[in-house]
Amino acid sequence: MNRLQRALDALVERIDTPAPIVLVDVMQGNIDRIQSFANQRNLKVRPHVKTHKCVEIGRRQIEAGAVGITAGNVGEAEVFAAAGFDDIFLAYPIWAAGTKRARIRRLAESARLRVGVDNVAAVEALADAMGDEPERLQVVIEVDCGARRSGAPAEAAGDLALAARKRGLVPVGVFTYPGHGGAGRDVRQRAAQDQETALTTAVRSLADVGVTAEVVSAGSTPTLEFSTSSVITEIRPGEYVFGDLNNARLGSCGEDQIALFVAGTVVSDWVPGQVILDVGTKALSREGSPEIGYGGIAGTKAVLGKLNEYHGFLPLPDGEFRPSVGTVVPVVPNHVCPVVLGFEELIVTDSTGTSLQRWPVDARGFLN
Amino acid sequence: MNRLQRALDALVERIDTPAPIVLVDVMQGNIDRIQSFANQRNLKVRPHVKTHKCVEIGRRQIEAGAVGITAGNVGEAEVFAAAGFDDIFLAYPIWAAGTKRARIRRLAESARLRVGVDNVAAVEALADAMGDEPERLQVVIEVDCGARRSGAPAEAAGDLALAARKRGLVPVGVFTYPGHGGAGRDVRQRAAQDQETALTTAVRSLADVGVTAEVVSAGSTPTLEFSTSSVITEIRPGEYVFGDLNNARLGSCGEDQIALFVAGTVVSDWVPGQVILDVGTKALSREGSPEIGYGGIAGTKAVLGKLNEYHGFLPLPDGEFRPSVGTVVPVVPNHVCPVVLGFEELIVTDSTGTSLQRWPVDARGFLN
Repeated sequence: MNRLQRALDALVERIDTPAPIVLVDVMQGNIDRIQSFANQRNLKVRPHVKTHKCVEIGRRQIEAGAVGITAGNVGEAEVFAAAGFDDIFLAYPIWAAGTKRARIRRLAESARLRVGVDNVAAVEALADAMGDEPERLQVVIEVDCGARRSGAPAEAAGDLALAARKRGLVPVGVFTYPGHGGAGRDVRQRAAQDQETALTTAVRSLADVGVTAEVVSAGSTPTLEFSTSSVITEIRPGEYVFGDLNNARLGSCGEDQIALFVAGTVVSDWVPGQVILDVGTKALSREGSPEIGYGGIAGTKAVLGKLNEYHGFLPLPDGEFRPSVGTVVPVVPNHVCPVVLGFEELIVTDSTGTSLQRWPVDARGFLN
Repeated sequence: MNRLQRALDALVERIDTPAPIVLVDVMQGNIDRIQSFANQRNLKVRPHVKTHKCVEIGRRQIEAGAVGITAGNVGEAEVFAAAGFDDIFLAYPIWAAGTKRARIRRLAESARLRVGVDNVAAVEALADAMGDEPERLQVVIEVDCGARRSGAPAEAAGDLALAARKRGLVPVGVFTYPGHGGAGRDVRQRAAQDQETALTTAVRSLADVGVTAEVVSAGSTPTLEFSTSSVITEIRPGEYVFGDLNNARLGSCGEDQIALFVAGTVVSDWVPGQVILDVGTKALSREGSPEIGYGGIAGTKAVLGKLNEYHGFLPLPDGEFRPSVGTVVPVVPNHVCPVVLGFEELIVTDSTGTSLQRWPVDARGFLN
């Protein structure tokens, strides 16, 4: 990953740290590779924008062939709808209350809007929110496949579809999230099999009540390579666009596919065998553990051992990596998704570090 | 803490979740109490704005008697300077490079700017950044008192002050951060004693080279109550303004002094003994551990057991707390500082929940 350090060295006089740096060539490679994977398997790609929250990156995903986007909350969907995205799946069991009722109604007027549901009360609340135009809202039944998070049992999908149809909403299919897949190819493969089983059962449950599952939607980046069944129609990967150390550890991205890092400066070096970087939890979030650390320095074995808000504690492993105060280093996050929260903009360059654009993190701060 | 639930119940139709809610009466009580504590001890208060990043709250701290503000990076300082704050201490070992050089110079023109330094290279870089007006920049020497983070040994403070003076910068004092104080009154008190010892040594080190320490600045909220020595001139608490569960556990705030919570909605309840809230890491950050959880529901024993980005897993303890889908609950963060990162605005009300204002998180997204 010295590639990252090279790009950074070329940029360094034009940026301030900490800052998230995107290598656009690596990112475009990720977008194209997954699209091509999906095309070969006749799967639609509907990328989750939570990872980048950036309209320009969403546009590139669409240009590469994505059918639309996935959003995690109404605010994200609104930002992308305002930018012209007209096919949005809110893959979340949205509860329509407060001022969200009118917001969902407006969203359904400006885009083809699909919303997740996993219970009858939520169906009722969504139908109430839609007033006299419930048919403008498509719902996708969320089923659980083992993550034990949200999602109805797969066998209950048909009843939920019927409840939606009874209120005039349009049930169009089912989705799930195989979030229980851990490290190792076999574990990820088992989670993908659980996903397959749950989706197949859910599709049958819909068919039993006379509803055709036009959409059978699968997550996630780590289970992507196993999402090749005949039942699945679309995939919703998010993290694939940037990659990160967690995905590299799981085996779901290569280290040379990591497209985002945080540039950090050594600001203090008084403690022997340790330097302090200006990269803390406000840049990286507290993702990691004392065992794996909280982010790694590309091209080295060094990992952040502890984070405060604006300080990263970097123990120096034995070897030649002895950065002095003022040295700028590329910090690769464990989990890339929280990084966009802290910054107004992404610094976009390529592997040579010569170009420099600034893309706003448009949907940052829209969390509800 | 049912007070929080009562305020929330009164607000609920006017807001969307997740959202950070501030009880302005409780917050004002915190501001006034600490100011009064400091006044009695002849200490200046210079609150750290990292916790709220909100100009309106900074104004209230100044109105209550704070002498200025503390910022954690140049971006935060710029936002507050643009809003008219004219006395700013960047309590961080700033490395002046890239476009930060010009930014620091401009900041020093619009406010009385003090910057932390802990090494000679940083002094040189700051002096270079200031061009032919180094005397516009005051520097405060950071010394370590046991946190083993940034900060020179206290005995080295004088040499650093001399290096600064040699380059035309104006050394005005010393600061430290007793971040090694853990749970329990005695542990916090010991950290405060370490702070006292380091600051006393540093002041003497400055005096030895003929520099008067006009500023002797101490952190943090947990050690506040012990910062009563004759050597300390100012305190830099941040978290006191809102409080949180970490501070309540340390004993440095009462539960009835917690002024910020995140309103969250139960969105799914399929797993027996568990509900899912729409409050995940993007709202709370991953602050906590499996042992203490990742945030608590006010007025109950329930704590979030696990977080995904948009999902909070809430195991339900035995008892009467059995919230159904659609119920809105007050989630009290373990650590309040990261919460402001994720949101455009704070929802500001009082303990009755009747008033509702929206205050922008002005310095959100300004991390470098």
